Amino acid sequence: MSNQTIRPVPAFEPPYYTAVFTSVQTETTEGYAETAERMMQLVKEIPGFLGYESARAPGGLGISVGYFKDEDAIAAWQRDLEHQAAQRRGRAEWYASYSLHVGKVERSHGFERE
Amino acid sequence: MSNQTIRPVPAFEPPYYTAVFTSVQTETTEGYAETAERMMQLVKEIPGFLGYESARAPGGLGISVGYFKDEDAIAAWQRDLEHQAAQRRGRAEWYASYSLHVGKVERSHGFERE
Repeated sequence: MSNQTIRPVPAFEPPYYTAVFTSVQTETTEGYAETAERMMQLVKEIPGFLGYESARAPGGLGISVGYFKDEDAIAAWQRDLEHQAAQRRGRAEWYASYSLHVGKVERSHGFERE
Repeated sequence: MSNQTIRPVPAFEPPYYTAVFTSVQTETTEGYAETAERMMQLVKEIPGFLGYESARAPGGLGISVGYFKDEDAIAAWQRDLEHQAAQRRGRAEWYASYSLHVGKVERSHGFERE
């Protein structure tokens, strides 16, 4: 896929929410890709889900950002039982460390080359 | 550097701010790495700067997150003239598209393997 076809999740009109998840993985990767794929499918069904993007430096830190319309959307995603099971497995197997920062977006700005 | 030595920026006690910058680059990379390095030095001098982390999928989307104590810290960084010049050059040369989302963190959570 060329850069021309990739676009960042846009700058929405505030307020909305960002959930920033940063992580360092263990050497255990069994089941990770399948679970990540399944979570991507599931979160798209949450009313108020706005978008998701992720990047990982090879062998290093990963950063994922989920975009949500409001607190209800985030709460609905947190209540999802399959998501909760994936989080437990993440702590048991896949993650050496992680941080989650849930913020209410007050200001946003986008740029796209002509 | 092994995974054991990399740690995410920690989950601070809210409130604090995240500035999420997601971008797709052009094919012009001249001067980018030096400028990014210089910005890293400069932002560390801002009172209330808490941390920074960045990841880019090879050939794809990059995600950078800056962590700041309060709005004053973010405003100081935005007023920095060298930072403003780098932003102009970014729009002129380095970025095909980007989004910036500045949010006030209301909830945070961290995990570290024993």
